[in-house]
Amino acid sequence: RTSRENAKQSVLSRVAVCGGTHGNELSGVYLVRELLKVKKGVMEKEEEQEEEEPLSVLKVLSNPRAMQQCRRYVDTDLNRCFTHATLNGLTSGTVPYEMIRSRELNAMLGPKGRSGAVDLVCDLHNTTANMGLCLIAYSDCDWICLHIFRHLQAISNKESYSLDSVGKHGFAMEIGPQPHGVARSTVYTAMKAGVQHMLDWVCFFNSGTLFEGESVDVFTMIKHIDYPRDSETRNITAAVHPHLQDRDFCPLHPEDPLFQTFSGETLRYKGNEPLYPFFINECAYYEKAFIETTAADWREHTHTHTHTRYLSN
Amino acid sequence: RTSRENAKQSVLSRVAVCGGTHGNELSGVYLVRELLKVKKGVMEKEEEQEEEEPLSVLKVLSNPRAMQQCRRYVDTDLNRCFTHATLNGLTSGTVPYEMIRSRELNAMLGPKGRSGAVDLVCDLHNTTANMGLCLIAYSDCDWICLHIFRHLQAISNKESYSLDSVGKHGFAMEIGPQPHGVARSTVYTAMKAGVQHMLDWVCFFNSGTLFEGESVDVFTMIKHIDYPRDSETRNITAAVHPHLQDRDFCPLHPEDPLFQTFSGETLRYKGNEPLYPFFINECAYYEKAFIETTAADWREHTHTHTHTRYLSN
Repeated sequence: RTSRENAKQSVLSRVAVCGGTHGNELSGVYLVRELLKVKKGVMEKEEEQEEEEPLSVLKVLSNPRAMQQCRRYVDTDLNRCFTHATLNGLTSGTVPYEMIRSRELNAMLGPKGRSGAVDLVCDLHNTTANMGLCLIAYSDCDWICLHIFRHLQAISNKESYSLDSVGKHGFAMEIGPQPHGVARSTVYTAMKAGVQHMLDWVCFFNSGTLFEGESVDVFTMIKHIDYPRDSETRNITAAVHPHLQDRDFCPLHPEDPLFQTFSGETLRYKGNEPLYPFFINECAYYEKAFIETTAADWREHTHTHTHTRYLSN
Repeated sequence: RTSRENAKQSVLSRVAVCGGTHGNELSGVYLVRELLKVKKGVMEKEEEQEEEEPLSVLKVLSNPRAMQQCRRYVDTDLNRCFTHATLNGLTSGTVPYEMIRSRELNAMLGPKGRSGAVDLVCDLHNTTANMGLCLIAYSDCDWICLHIFRHLQAISNKESYSLDSVGKHGFAMEIGPQPHGVARSTVYTAMKAGVQHMLDWVCFFNSGTLFEGESVDVFTMIKHIDYPRDSETRNITAAVHPHLQDRDFCPLHPEDPLFQTFSGETLRYKGNEPLYPFFINECAYYEKAFIETTAADWREHTHTHTHTRYLSN
């Protein structure tokens, strides 16, 4: 069967491209600003050819206050505010800015889980990790996303608290390495091309193109590994080992170096099987332990490597 | 003549090593924390050998509040608060935290310009620019610093509003590339070695070693080049061109690519002579224009390359 025969939804008429969900991840901020300047340009070229199935692309700057301060967020991480509980729960007292903003975004792009939601959300992110262009989704059986991932020859994993969960389909486009608060031209250009390819695929789909079943590489989350920390102060006591730094998605074997302590000692990976670390030394995960006081702050998300057949015959 | 004959000051008995002057530049934060753990270790090995001329190394975490928030600063840039006016002027109303802290540090390490000041301040910084290990000073005729620079085979430039101006001699040790808010083990290790070499030199000096006159490479600041900006919003409209990114201290020739606009256009260097850019795409300089509303936010400090004979015969 082809994707079109599988489709309950015959057309993706409303697509949202979001930047600045984290205010210091600048590629998305600058790309969305650039797209907002281009009213009827290249990015929506299909719109005029396909008048009966117009494609509407909403360009959204998700967290303007955090962008203004060039911080990840002002009060709390916006990209953890899109659970049903946060979007629909009662509030009292001082409400964090991002909770208010998540409800605004849900009204604009959702409501999450409802028929009025946009068809596809593409949320743009940067990481300090050496991950290249990487696509992250909650589900490994959303065939719209999987077709887009294959179209971009990319990868996915799962979770469900973030902005891209508001649309009927959604994923995050994550590109690195780029320091937060900095724009690197090559990273910006790769993201721009990635968004263009995603919109191209939507246009192909909307115009009735048939897509053959194929396989796509998927990394599935297994666990987090936190930095070694001082038991009293919770300060980290080691950095990622130079042999591991920048080796995202490369296999990490038992006894491979993991950390180098600030006094110079090497700490090794004590697991029993090889895993594929990613988000290695991502800036945003340093502070999580301070804020959430969990051991999950450093998402050296280790992953198994599987092939998923995403369309059956 | 040798350096010792030139010396009015026969010994450097009090040296301060400062980290966290910018709270999100983590190599210095972690290095000073590590040094604070080592009470009488390697870093002060000369102290016991030279009992008549002990070396006291003060380890200072300059901006604890900014460190806690992992931000450059809380209210205002601490490293611009060490002018005589800011340190000694009258204050009224709400005083920015960093102004209070600069006075505390001046009391601890200064008073600036007075005989009670520490002999040498080494202030540890990181940059997102690809600058390697780089030493920055206000003066190109402070022979103590120049000898240390030569000992570290490094470079310098000038200005005078920062923490290292509080001591009798002082310089900033700047290492990159490292994203702010992130520690990279290789950068940390290079900084640790740099501080050790600096302290080694002080110990050699204090024990009466004679240093021959030599030349040292010095880059002198010529001008800043700001990012292209939207005239209304002041948002930047271009990133550093991929051909220039990471090429700190390499010559930039007239008509070489300088920026790539977010729409894809190349902007070229229009100067008449080659210059040596540095601090290329440093994160902290994006916001300066917002705060100071000057055109000097992006310190692609262009520099002439000179040789300075720092000890005459």
